[in-house]
Amino acid sequence: MTAAENGRPFTVEPWCVREPALHLEAMGQTESVFALSNGHIGMRGNLDEGEPHAIPGTYLNSLYERRPLPYAEGGYGYPESGQTIINVTNGKLIRLLVDDEPFDLRYGQLRRHERVLDLQAGTLTREVEWVSPADRAIRVRSTRLVSLTQRAIAAICYEVEVLDGPTTLVVQSELVANEQLPQRANGDPRVEAALAEPLVAEQHRSEEAGATLVHQTRQSGLRLAAAMDHEVYGPGSTKMSSEATEDIGRTTVIARIVPGETLRIVKYLSYGWSSRRSLPAVHDQVRAALAAARFTGWEGLLAEQRQYLDDFWITADVEIDGDAELQQAIRLATFHVLQAGARAERRAIGAKGLTGDGYDGHTFWDTETFALPVLSHLAPDAAADALRWRRSILPQAMERAEQLGLAGAAFPWRTIRGHECSGYWPAGTAAFHINADIADAVRRHVAATGDIEFEREVGLELLVQTARLWRSLGHHDAAGEFRIDGVTGPDEYSAIVDNNVYTNLMAQLNLRHAAEVAAKHPRPAARLGVNAEEMASWRDAASSMRIPFDEVLGVHPQAEGFTDHQMWDFEGTPASKYPLLLHYPYFDLYRKQVIKQADLVLAMQLQPDAFTPEQMARNFAYYEAITVRDSSLSAATQAVVAAWTGHLDLAFDYFAEAALVDLGDLAGNTDHGMHIASMAGTWTAVASGFGGMRTDRDGISFAPRLPSALSRISFGLKYQGRSLRVTITPDEVEYRLVSGPPMRLRHHGEPLALADAPVVRDMPAVPMPEPVEQPHGRSPRRRHPG
Amino acid sequence: MTAAENGRPFTVEPWCVREPALHLEAMGQTESVFALSNGHIGMRGNLDEGEPHAIPGTYLNSLYERRPLPYAEGGYGYPESGQTIINVTNGKLIRLLVDDEPFDLRYGQLRRHERVLDLQAGTLTREVEWVSPADRAIRVRSTRLVSLTQRAIAAICYEVEVLDGPTTLVVQSELVANEQLPQRANGDPRVEAALAEPLVAEQHRSEEAGATLVHQTRQSGLRLAAAMDHEVYGPGSTKMSSEATEDIGRTTVIARIVPGETLRIVKYLSYGWSSRRSLPAVHDQVRAALAAARFTGWEGLLAEQRQYLDDFWITADVEIDGDAELQQAIRLATFHVLQAGARAERRAIGAKGLTGDGYDGHTFWDTETFALPVLSHLAPDAAADALRWRRSILPQAMERAEQLGLAGAAFPWRTIRGHECSGYWPAGTAAFHINADIADAVRRHVAATGDIEFEREVGLELLVQTARLWRSLGHHDAAGEFRIDGVTGPDEYSAIVDNNVYTNLMAQLNLRHAAEVAAKHPRPAARLGVNAEEMASWRDAASSMRIPFDEVLGVHPQAEGFTDHQMWDFEGTPASKYPLLLHYPYFDLYRKQVIKQADLVLAMQLQPDAFTPEQMARNFAYYEAITVRDSSLSAATQAVVAAWTGHLDLAFDYFAEAALVDLGDLAGNTDHGMHIASMAGTWTAVASGFGGMRTDRDGISFAPRLPSALSRISFGLKYQGRSLRVTITPDEVEYRLVSGPPMRLRHHGEPLALADAPVVRDMPAVPMPEPVEQPHGRSPRRRHPG
Repeated sequence: MTAAENGRPFTVEPWCVREPALHLEAMGQTESVFALSNGHIGMRGNLDEGEPHAIPGTYLNSLYERRPLPYAEGGYGYPESGQTIINVTNGKLIRLLVDDEPFDLRYGQLRRHERVLDLQAGTLTREVEWVSPADRAIRVRSTRLVSLTQRAIAAICYEVEVLDGPTTLVVQSELVANEQLPQRANGDPRVEAALAEPLVAEQHRSEEAGATLVHQTRQSGLRLAAAMDHEVYGPGSTKMSSEATEDIGRTTVIARIVPGETLRIVKYLSYGWSSRRSLPAVHDQVRAALAAARFTGWEGLLAEQRQYLDDFWITADVEIDGDAELQQAIRLATFHVLQAGARAERRAIGAKGLTGDGYDGHTFWDTETFALPVLSHLAPDAAADALRWRRSILPQAMERAEQLGLAGAAFPWRTIRGHECSGYWPAGTAAFHINADIADAVRRHVAATGDIEFEREVGLELLVQTARLWRSLGHHDAAGEFRIDGVTGPDEYSAIVDNNVYTNLMAQLNLRHAAEVAAKHPRPAARLGVNAEEMASWRDAASSMRIPFDEVLGVHPQAEGFTDHQMWDFEGTPASKYPLLLHYPYFDLYRKQVIKQADLVLAMQLQPDAFTPEQMARNFAYYEAITVRDSSLSAATQAVVAAWTGHLDLAFDYFAEAALVDLGDLAGNTDHGMHIASMAGTWTAVASGFGGMRTDRDGISFAPRLPSALSRISFGLKYQGRSLRVTITPDEVEYRLVSGPPMRLRHHGEPLALADAPVVRDMPAVPMPEPVEQPHGRSPRRRHPG
Repeated sequence: MTAAENGRPFTVEPWCVREPALHLEAMGQTESVFALSNGHIGMRGNLDEGEPHAIPGTYLNSLYERRPLPYAEGGYGYPESGQTIINVTNGKLIRLLVDDEPFDLRYGQLRRHERVLDLQAGTLTREVEWVSPADRAIRVRSTRLVSLTQRAIAAICYEVEVLDGPTTLVVQSELVANEQLPQRANGDPRVEAALAEPLVAEQHRSEEAGATLVHQTRQSGLRLAAAMDHEVYGPGSTKMSSEATEDIGRTTVIARIVPGETLRIVKYLSYGWSSRRSLPAVHDQVRAALAAARFTGWEGLLAEQRQYLDDFWITADVEIDGDAELQQAIRLATFHVLQAGARAERRAIGAKGLTGDGYDGHTFWDTETFALPVLSHLAPDAAADALRWRRSILPQAMERAEQLGLAGAAFPWRTIRGHECSGYWPAGTAAFHINADIADAVRRHVAATGDIEFEREVGLELLVQTARLWRSLGHHDAAGEFRIDGVTGPDEYSAIVDNNVYTNLMAQLNLRHAAEVAAKHPRPAARLGVNAEEMASWRDAASSMRIPFDEVLGVHPQAEGFTDHQMWDFEGTPASKYPLLLHYPYFDLYRKQVIKQADLVLAMQLQPDAFTPEQMARNFAYYEAITVRDSSLSAATQAVVAAWTGHLDLAFDYFAEAALVDLGDLAGNTDHGMHIASMAGTWTAVASGFGGMRTDRDGISFAPRLPSALSRISFGLKYQGRSLRVTITPDEVEYRLVSGPPMRLRHHGEPLALADAPVVRDMPAVPMPEPVEQPHGRSPRRRHPG
């Protein structure tokens, strides 16, 4: 399919995302889709010359600025200041003058413009043919990478040819701090002011081939260094010089080029930041990284990048036969999940990774509930590091719990560096489920990796402190049931409810698992003050946990009383009124039966054993009819449970929606960054939904199903030191051990032993379930042929 | 009791509030207690010379400025701008120079300083003897009034004597706009900026004996004129001249006075404002009012004021034998309720009246639920006018309802001019009960006055539009019950709950009464679009209204599920942690059993017939144990229901707490204005609590009871064109018709006919109820002797 045919800027190809012509109107989207990151450095796909742009962005993981959080009416425990990711020193900038005319696509004639994100090479390549207003034709080819192997490094190879006569080229390769950003719509002027020029210059230096700028953030006091170095290949007369001022480092290359010649510049970039290290230390750190990168060289960086990705794709690749668009989409999704976490190294993985400024660069429960289950199976070290980051912010979380009058740890609903940054507590502080989500990510990670040392050294403390939170947050009622009142579950169209089933089930598992793991590691548990009485109190609360059930309807209410609420008037709500939160007040959404995103259905995905098959079917049908998917966190979960309840074609539609959220800009906000949770959910829809994969203390099991639209799905995963591949066709499924020792698994309940030889099993027949319905106008786009 | 003995700045006297010596540390409190107002103009009890002060304040009813309402995270339907009462042109200022030394109490020697608020004269008088740093002794006597008979007028008589030798006196009598105000603690700098100099000068003029300043508010564009005129009585050589600049009008009087002589200046002040009238119109309006006041003269104004109050006190006076402090307190309370409403004339009655800047000068449900039931019986025209104001803001309330997706009218939780100004919707927009409170004030006013024309012309539309709101806000569940979900009742330590009993009972009455009144006035009802079907739907919703009841505990839960919630840890909460909202997060308060202010107990006060005597007793005991009274809206209500359930001594304690809230500064915030609702509740505690007064369609009834601490209570009220007085002694009660035609009433259920001759009945014996308990440390101060 060509770009024009699907109405998107991109063509459909298996291993790359190609924009064959410049789409100025989709610039924000392409900047996000083409963003490169290694989890430490993130660079949006801005044009080399900086303009035109939608949102210029270069980010360093966890480098943030403080900003005021204003309230019309304040309250105890409201956070006073927030944290916002900032656009750091821009090293992507390479400006070009062509016989004194600036190379700017908005002027002159653009003969050709192509950008390609290569998912195997890990590079963004651009090719341009342009005729200047003064009729000079040139060809520019640039290749950009953010190194997955050298964490502090990015590099750009920039080549210019002239096409129709000798031309003087001036290339200005820059570092620019405090770039002017587009005004945000409805921005609070105080916040705008706080973030207008966040970087205070500390030092600027230049050498012949490069420069270094050191800054500190104005309020948060974080020190940041950015350095660049260049290699230039051009005619003998080519000249290079560099200069630096407080906010600008500039290397200028001047060359007189004739047709057939190429001016080639390799730009090496290095970034570092610290909240503690001295100016000389941070300065030297980036210069050293730069020296190492130059030692590796451009070709060396390219080769390392490809090798890293080859190793990744051996396990991570998902093959989809029967839908080329989704084949591309799932590879892009997997690539962006990797980019978000690969080298985050004990820092947060944000909701947008490092691809944009959406949600202020904050990390939410998305990380543990959506991204980590994928990373634990595809890049387990990255998952472990993300959880180590959570452990590193335990002091802030324990302080927050104390402030709230609770025991243990209360992790922030949204944060960069560990402090609560949510300015609306009913959908922030009250969403305590994030604590159980973190505990569950620990449990799943250990199940996926078998890493008992991690469990003891990192996991145990997270489990203990979250269990303590739940024990203090809930209480036993007169009938002896353990209740958790006044909290908010995943669905943000409800808030401050009693006994949210998702929260209570996740808290139950958290309490149980903490007791189990503490019993398994008695000495470190004792060091955390855990004794037999405390463990007993966790087990007791877990076993008394109240899980409301509506006997009349035969379904679980999302929370106490939910099914007594008025139905939302779906028929009376036109398409233009979605997302509802922009058109209806919270009070109205909260008190009616309308669901933004999977909540009870997510509980079924994460804890299937808490539901009978009949309950799962009835619950799915009930909630399907009132879920409007105003959040991108919903479709992948609905895909999984639809697949489990036999609605395979519907599951496929939801899978497609999750996979295409950014390629198709389905939420209309891809310009502010990629939806990492939805990207991750895409993989989960395949492995957990169609693959029926579950891991628990009994090992790993699969229950594959194939939607009618596809002829084959193949996916891989790491499991306790092995690499495993599952290939599903309409009639049979093949399990293959790509590497690692023999293992056992279950196929639709049947135990199997798997060693060097693949094992093939027949696919069971899928009984046809009763059809389910979505709210008026909110069905997913029908993609399956049926 | 002297001022020193009770630890307060005031002595205890029956008809006045006297501060016998200056209490600088209590300046904020005395400024509020000594505030004079007629409901149109309000003047805090600032010293004539302006300084020292706590909070300078001159207010005009509904003259407000717009200010931004900031949100850390915004939402649909959040109000973007608020309204704040502003300190208008200060006409109270009279500065004095004594031989070139400014008269300032902080310098020189203060021999005597006394201020007296005279509740029969309606004046604030001050007498000072002061020796200047240069040893000049003077005596200053000033008397200030805000006229209850001439709405636009205030006046001051200012007299200076010299005590020990000829002295040159310079008196500067001023109008000052944009006075500098003390910085508010934790003020938002944007809000401070918006309110710093709210008045933009339009015109300034001076004449020999006075001046006029015209301004407009900067954002809200309201035009304000203030004018002054003077009469001067002094030695022949006395000179007077006046000048004006944009923000200052100044009349200067110079006199050489010898001992035995007095310099006497009468200052007449006139205020007017309009959102529509032209500059000349507003200017001429204040000059005309001033001319009328001068025509009346100072003595005339004093005489009118006393006559007005004499007429008022004939009915309104409450006599309390046995507690001199409460005798004084209830008269002060009644006086301030009168001042808040007397001449408001179709403008709002704020929570603080016009006595301070607390709550931004906003009007809440306090008006209808606490103040109007009193005014309907003591100053019925003022009550009618307040409800006419509500009708005048129906367009804004209907617009708000539409914005919220509701029918009818959604009155603002807090406002000055009718627009919602609440920046925290869970305790703002969600508190829909205000609409039923307004409807109930209509019902009570008509019951008190018998004013059927008011019912038809004003009440009907309020009843219809609020009934429509309820019909659209609630819904029938599958079992046929009418539910109102996701709202907030009076208790602000709960929010966003289902089926709050108070709300549902009040909505039920609103729906029923609207149907009744519409049936009674069919033609005007038809003009409002009411038809038989709609009336039937109101009656149906009312009769199906869900009122939850906890069968196990035998009490009404405040809202669905309330009694299942965890008990607040009262024993673990030290006194220093009250009020709780300053020390605990909302989420914690909301999900536990802890009550800020009467909610279910208020429902019992307002709708006693909805509860059996046993339910009332059990409910009162249950809620008494969890109510912490962090709101001043609670004690009076608890007094009423304590009296009804036989806890007469406890009722007396609560009555005392309500009565003394400002004289004793019990809430620590009297400096920001008087607690008008608590003042009004004091009267209600007497009439409704001890008097057992109820009015309904069956007429008026009493069920008097006397607490053991008192030997006699006598209170009066207007009822359907009559003035009635009820006198309660330990053994008997006397009903006396002071004026008006014969009537019927009930005494403890017994029908009585009352004409010229008083009727005396025995008091029945009161059975002793089971004692009740308050939360640890939260019992009211024991005042009763027992």
